[in-house]
Amino acid sequence: MTVPVVGVDLGGTKIFGALVDPAGTGLGAVLEDAKSPTPTGGVDSILDAVEALVRRLDPAPTAVGIGTPGVVEPATGRVLLAPNLSGFDRPVDVRRLLEERLGCPVSVGNDVNVAALGEARAGAGVGYDDVLAVWLGTGLGAGLVLDGRLRIGPHGLAGELGHAVVMPGGRRCGCGGLGHLEAYIGRRALEALARELHAAGRSTQLVELAGDGPMKSKVFQAAYEAGDPVARELLDEGFLLLAVAVVNVAVTVDIGAVVVGGGLGERFGDLVTEQLASALRTLGHAGIEPDVHKAVLGDHAGALGAARLALEAGRDLG
Amino acid sequence: MTVPVVGVDLGGTKIFGALVDPAGTGLGAVLEDAKSPTPTGGVDSILDAVEALVRRLDPAPTAVGIGTPGVVEPATGRVLLAPNLSGFDRPVDVRRLLEERLGCPVSVGNDVNVAALGEARAGAGVGYDDVLAVWLGTGLGAGLVLDGRLRIGPHGLAGELGHAVVMPGGRRCGCGGLGHLEAYIGRRALEALARELHAAGRSTQLVELAGDGPMKSKVFQAAYEAGDPVARELLDEGFLLLAVAVVNVAVTVDIGAVVVGGGLGERFGDLVTEQLASALRTLGHAGIEPDVHKAVLGDHAGALGAARLALEAGRDLG
Repeated sequence: MTVPVVGVDLGGTKIFGALVDPAGTGLGAVLEDAKSPTPTGGVDSILDAVEALVRRLDPAPTAVGIGTPGVVEPATGRVLLAPNLSGFDRPVDVRRLLEERLGCPVSVGNDVNVAALGEARAGAGVGYDDVLAVWLGTGLGAGLVLDGRLRIGPHGLAGELGHAVVMPGGRRCGCGGLGHLEAYIGRRALEALARELHAAGRSTQLVELAGDGPMKSKVFQAAYEAGDPVARELLDEGFLLLAVAVVNVAVTVDIGAVVVGGGLGERFGDLVTEQLASALRTLGHAGIEPDVHKAVLGDHAGALGAARLALEAGRDLG
Repeated sequence: MTVPVVGVDLGGTKIFGALVDPAGTGLGAVLEDAKSPTPTGGVDSILDAVEALVRRLDPAPTAVGIGTPGVVEPATGRVLLAPNLSGFDRPVDVRRLLEERLGCPVSVGNDVNVAALGEARAGAGVGYDDVLAVWLGTGLGAGLVLDGRLRIGPHGLAGELGHAVVMPGGRRCGCGGLGHLEAYIGRRALEALARELHAAGRSTQLVELAGDGPMKSKVFQAAYEAGDPVARELLDEGFLLLAVAVVNVAVTVDIGAVVVGGGLGERFGDLVTEQLASALRTLGHAGIEPDVHKAVLGDHAGALGAARLALEAGRDLG
């Protein structure tokens, strides 16, 4: 029986949904998709919009999965805190409220974890039971699938790899900690550092190309490819420390593959995966380092992962 | 039904067995124990000794678990390579051979992983589903229990935390890698470093107390407690980097507790656990760092863990 399920990626600015064929893999599993802007009028307006989007995809859904920003309580499907959703500055019982509206089982997960499940089970990680997915964006998000199942952990802390200590006593992270991975490879941290170096007198295309605007992934790409010394210095260090973090995941839980996505990951494409694979060979245990793949689901990873979450919750329930 | 099971810790010099009450916890779960020297006459002599030890504890065992050094193939229970067991320089089908001899199901696991399962399920980790156990000995051994189950991984690499990179480009490990945890907190590495510093002109009680003999845990303890600057310098750095590795495990998979055992761990007792807990509070995510406990099963961790392995394999089989 392969009845389609609906996956929803509830973001800070848009809601993205997909009707997903459980038997499909990759983008081919998306039977239909839809999106709408995320309302800013509080919890009810957001749930109204999610409900409407789901019903556009399937008027009578059998199961719905949803990825949301913030902290999700695994056992209850409550979203404890999601500062970039209007009205989600206190706990919202998303699972129960949506189940009442939709009349079907609803599964709720953190958006990054859910996207990792998408890549692991329907994207670049197909064929592996144990996958680390890493998104290089403004910060660094990650999710871990072990024995084919999303790992959450007793405090919901699993996959917080951006805050792994990769350089003891090193650069200060946005969270206040020292030497965290995100301080070396997150775009926000790299931009701040590039602007500091520029202000201190080092010329760099990173600042010249970005001007006063945000330093987007394509700026990093252009400066890096032009051989800009500051871009090379910052990103090469970042890629190496990303490899350190991945090796440490490998010797902790053992993984078959690592999947790299997100703005920086996609822009740099093969460069990141090749550098990571090479660093893993240098740092790792000869012959048993994880395979490295580029993410393949793009913006659909969240909705596809949310659909997998719904399917696998169903499997758990028997 | 709580029929006792037999757990065996097959070591390089001795074989230690225990008849274990599945309903018990801690050392109270050991109904009876026995040990014998490990024969050096090849595979058959070792299996003869294991069989005899098991039958001394239970003439007709219902289930047996065994922890062995080296690499164990999880699906088959074959020991692929265990250089410090005579005849185990090539794969030995330990599970099948012992099942034929004993007429009951036999489960086989790596000794460090099995001991971690013991502490997690019957020792200091009781009450936690997600536990990291770390042994500070000649090197650093670790094992990970997630959702109450021993984590092995697709290559059997899980728990190889001694080879986590905690200082990129740092001290060389016995395995050849740079900056691995074991190079900072393994007793073998610390001894080599202390002797180097001594040879280079720094006086240290570590070398004065040890003389030409092995630098045992009690030597480290005495020198550290006397305030010897080299001992302080080396061990404080080691404890801090151990905390870095533990924080990284916490942000990767999320754990409820970390259990510390082994010669150095036991000698230093509360000092290690207090230092580790304090470093975790500094390095970690406020309020959600794992609890820290001393190991409580001592030499019995392996046999108790092997018994748990047998019990839980039985549960898996239905």
